Amino acid sequence: MTGIQNSQLDELDLQILDILIKDCRTPYLEIARICHVSGGTIHVRMKKMEDLGIIKGTRILLNLPTLGYDVCCFVGVYVDKTSSFSAVCDELSKINEVVELHLITGNYSLFAKLVCKNITDLQDILMNKVNVISGIERTDTLISLSQPIDRNIKL
Amino acid sequence: MTGIQNSQLDELDLQILDILIKDCRTPYLEIARICHVSGGTIHVRMKKMEDLGIIKGTRILLNLPTLGYDVCCFVGVYVDKTSSFSAVCDELSKINEVVELHLITGNYSLFAKLVCKNITDLQDILMNKVNVISGIERTDTLISLSQPIDRNIKL
Amino acid sequence: MTGIQNSQLDELDLQILDILIKDCRTPYLEIARICHVSGGTIHVRMKKMEDLGIIKGTRILLNLPTLGYDVCCFVGVYVDKTSSFSAVCDELSKINEVVELHLITGNYSLFAKLVCKNITDLQDILMNKVNVISGIERTDTLISLSQPIDRNIKL
Amino acid sequence: MTGIQNSQLDELDLQILDILIKDCRTPYLEIARICHVSGGTIHVRMKKMEDLGIIKGTRILLNLPTLGYDVCCFVGVYVDKTSSFSAVCDELSKINEVVELHLITGNYSLFAKLVCKNITDLQDILMNKVNVISGIERTDTLISLSQPIDRNIKL
Amino acid sequence: MTGIQNSQLDELDLQILDILIKDCRTPYLEIARICHVSGGTIHVRMKKMEDLGIIKGTRILLNLPTLGYDVCCFVGVYVDKTSSFSAVCDELSKINEVVELHLITGNYSLFAKLVCKNITDLQDILMNKVNVISGIERTDTLISLSQPIDRNIKL
Amino acid sequence: MTGIQNSQLDELDLQILDILIKDCRTPYLEIARICHVSGGTIHVRMKKMEDLGIIKGTRILLNLPTLGYDVCCFVGVYVDKTSSFSAVCDELSKINEVVELHLITGNYSLFAKLVCKNITDLQDILMNKVNVISGIERTDTLISLSQPIDRNIKL
Amino acid sequence: MTGIQNSQLDELDLQILDILIKDCRTPYLEIARICHVSGGTIHVRMKKMEDLGIIKGTRILLNLPTLGYDVCCFVGVYVDKTSSFSAVCDELSKINEVVELHLITGNYSLFAKLVCKNITDLQDILMNKVNVISGIERTDTLISLSQPIDRNIKL
Amino acid sequence: MTGIQNSQLDELDLQILDILIKDCRTPYLEIARICHVSGGTIHVRMKKMEDLGIIKGTRILLNLPTLGYDVCCFVGVYVDKTSSFSAVCDELSKINEVVELHLITGNYSLFAKLVCKNITDLQDILMNKVNVISGIERTDTLISLSQPIDRNIKL
Repeated sequence: MTGIQNSQLDELDLQILDILIKDCRTPYLEIARICHVSGGTIHVRMKKMEDLGIIKGTRILLNLPTLGYDVCCFVGVYVDKTSSFSAVCDELSKINEVVELHLITGNYSLFAKLVCKNITDLQDILMNKVNVISGIERTDTLISLSQPIDRNIKL
Repeated sequence: MTGIQNSQLDELDLQILDILIKDCRTPYLEIARICHVSGGTIHVRMKKMEDLGIIKGTRILLNLPTLGYDVCCFVGVYVDKTSSFSAVCDELSKINEVVELHLITGNYSLFAKLVCKNITDLQDILMNKVNVISGIERTDTLISLSQPIDRNIKL
Repeated sequence: MTGIQNSQLDELDLQILDILIKDCRTPYLEIARICHVSGGTIHVRMKKMEDLGIIKGTRILLNLPTLGYDVCCFVGVYVDKTSSFSAVCDELSKINEVVELHLITGNYSLFAKLVCKNITDLQDILMNKVNVISGIERTDTLISLSQPIDRNIKL
Repeated sequence: MTGIQNSQLDELDLQILDILIKDCRTPYLEIARICHVSGGTIHVRMKKMEDLGIIKGTRILLNLPTLGYDVCCFVGVYVDKTSSFSAVCDELSKINEVVELHLITGNYSLFAKLVCKNITDLQDILMNKVNVISGIERTDTLISLSQPIDRNIKL
Repeated sequence: MTGIQNSQLDELDLQILDILIKDCRTPYLEIARICHVSGGTIHVRMKKMEDLGIIKGTRILLNLPTLGYDVCCFVGVYVDKTSSFSAVCDELSKINEVVELHLITGNYSLFAKLVCKNITDLQDILMNKVNVISGIERTDTLISLSQPIDRNIKL
Repeated sequence: MTGIQNSQLDELDLQILDILIKDCRTPYLEIARICHVSGGTIHVRMKKMEDLGIIKGTRILLNLPTLGYDVCCFVGVYVDKTSSFSAVCDELSKINEVVELHLITGNYSLFAKLVCKNITDLQDILMNKVNVISGIERTDTLISLSQPIDRNIKL
Repeated sequence: MTGIQNSQLDELDLQILDILIKDCRTPYLEIARICHVSGGTIHVRMKKMEDLGIIKGTRILLNLPTLGYDVCCFVGVYVDKTSSFSAVCDELSKINEVVELHLITGNYSLFAKLVCKNITDLQDILMNKVNVISGIERTDTLISLSQPIDRNIKL
Repeated sequence: MTGIQNSQLDELDLQILDILIKDCRTPYLEIARICHVSGGTIHVRMKKMEDLGIIKGTRILLNLPTLGYDVCCFVGVYVDKTSSFSAVCDELSKINEVVELHLITGNYSLFAKLVCKNITDLQDILMNKVNVISGIERTDTLISLSQPIDRNIKL
């Protein structure tokens, strides 16, 4: 709960993370050049931050509308008690279009983020994939009309 | 609205995207080796997909709890009419902890995703950064208790 | 409150309405043939029902998705008190995409049905046409995922 | 998703649709006169638009209060999971008073539009026809107090 | 549904109803004196209005707080589908404290008005009389803090 | 708050109240006969109960649908802060159709019971009498579909 | 319902309660000194107030965040009808983190106050202790972001 | 945020806290006797825990119904933006009956716990003390019907 001690990450570590947040494909030698240190130093620091579990991996950002995925939505899920939460999570995990899933405070039991092609596709996923999962009682869908902000936190 | 024509992306393109979705730092030569083509071919295809606007960039995945960011939440925002939506979006954009912002159907006007250090930090952001924005009438916060799924869509 | 007296509409009138409900372009002579009466009789009865205000007109049924209108939705409108209801209705009436408008019991002040091209089009209409109307405080949008029933009442 | 290509409908087609939207009983010869073309041309264009599936049919507009149908309402339906959605839709389809049915985002599973004679009639339909359908858990009724707009979309 | 024809109730009838709405214990002779007609006329008119079903009876107005009944509340009842509405109504009818019961539009299935002695009494009624009724899923209680208006409609 | 002491009302008082709850027009001599006491005793007891403020008056029970009042509804009222509650109560009190008004816990500020002729009449009252009151922000209407219970509490 | 008669508590009693409300560990001799009476008098009054059931006990106020309990929240509980309320209360009573439990008007059946260490701890309690209780259908969690007031009522 | 290090509190400290949680008026000598240590040791440990800020004070537990305080309720407060949160908190702090106040996630801005004498008292506090505070837009009251659990957390 307490996070990494300040003493574990120095200025150089944060500078490296800052460069990778902007473009995680930046080559180590380029990072080294920007930071005025050797490439070996970058390797050492990256190794340390990976060992500390700070860097989990990388993600390619796809332009989903360009690929035909026009609809992004959030689905609040009410789970009944005849089935365990973990069973419902496992089933939702099998649906490719579910890209995030949260256990959440407030009204809903679970809160999922879905990406799909269009309204007809969404209707198919909700009716034939989500609502048929045993243990899901009801769903509530909020469709994103546009998304002006999508970014990493600035450290 | 119609997405890229099927004819524009062939098997090889999709195979490349698939490799990058798993690890976007995979070097082009490694991608070429996996796909049994030359490195030059990979460059040509990547260039094409960037020109088509399919690849927007890359994102480093940070282990936020390890960095001391324990709280992830969604904030539903009710906007009043004395101020324009775009002004509110601009102000929210200045808050580092806001990592997503959606215009959304349903009850809320705007729907934001925030990452912050702890409950006290969240209270500070909501009271002193979000709720002081002119045009925001009221907010409703849903705190993520855990997040079992966080991934890209499988094409 | 009482509707047309039973005595005003006889069997023949109802038979004529029934034919027109199925296809309102049916020619009078065809109606006459089906009902085993003269064309003149049909004219007299139609005149009577128009005089009684029973028949308001006709409507062509367009296949909206085929024309590029993929999104049908309902919009609950909260009206504030700085502006009259009739002014808000007048403004909504100027928006082509609004095809129905109801004053309604329950949570919302007004309840509109909209038809538009796609999610981006809907976002544009909500942000730039509906929500800018003076007197509209907030809107809540329910998107129709599919519509299995669309018909006239059977008399 | 993409709708009819612009090139498929020309000015004349849209002018014809425009006349029919106003009064779909306008005879072809009258349409021809207004458009300054021959009756045969109108037939050809109508045939094309019917083949393209643009014109689904026509609907007579009845003055329902005059016929004794004073109550128009929307009914939000919560469906439980013991029964399939399609079975519930089939049952609702047998109720004459249900004139529209939508699968819908947001709180409700299904959203129906009903027309009936009066409050007593509505109570009878809700209690004895709708709520007895196996799979319907609960309904929420919004009564239209008046309907200032009821029209086709303007193309 | 259509109400008494205007012609059935004349000025004198309405004047009599008006006097009885103010104090239904007014003796017939007193009514006669006020209306400047004979006592016999009042009897005739009263008989007519009782035959028409206009006067259902009379009710004594008790000062409930003075009798120790401090709490008046409304209870929204959600009914599940395992039991018929009429069975639930019958059970509620056996609870003395239930003074009104409505089938109602909106969120609740049934809506009851209860009068009871105090908060402890209310808790006992809700837990041990209302919520034990088979078919009642959940209740929602709105407590009247004070009641500034309690009267008959003015005709 | 404590109610009448038990010692103040004896068996005879309760028996008299019981008779009047059933039919408040029962003549004193008839009550005396049923209770096996003299008419004078009844007068004394009635005088005592009126002095104690137990009996507030009487109310005639009208068959409202027979008089053309088909719609009974509850209206939840949201009051804004620009106007005092008592001013809003005063204005609502001027509307004949408002027969009850409660200050209430839960979502609404005020909760009114209305009786009116039909849906059109209700729409007129809500739009032109209730919603024009300064200080009323929004209303939510629940229409009674039928009322199986309407009675006094049994003591 | 009526509370202690005024005559039972005099000025001195209230003064003693006032001192104990500020610091309940104040020794009797100190209370006696402040009130200008003998220690014996304080003992007599304390005995009286304990016999009257006015003083239930004392509670130490712990600084919960200092002890590592960072999260205070309210949990609204929906109870289904397959299990008795008292069984659910018994089960909730076994969870150490539940410090208050109310039967409550409004939306929820039960309303609990919980204190726990952090978000992960809360998720564990909700998923593995609260939601597994037979008879609990659904929960809704409101997290306290900060608590500016926490005190006894002033008499 | 991280809590006291385990090493700072040993078995004896926790045993002392445990005794005080049960009855915070237990004399130090009695605590010493139970723990088999000297009274001086208890003083040292108490001093340490007070210095660490673990013990904030003590609270007398009053039997509120016995004192005539029959109503305990929670009040959700919606705050508008014309006034600062802290100003509203300050005003609420002046109301004796407000015993807790939370800034809270979810629907409400503020969430208060009130204790008062009866329904009439509550109505007076809500109307004349709470709702007159500038910046409070609306309140929603949940009345506790009974409270089966009221205790400290077990460490």
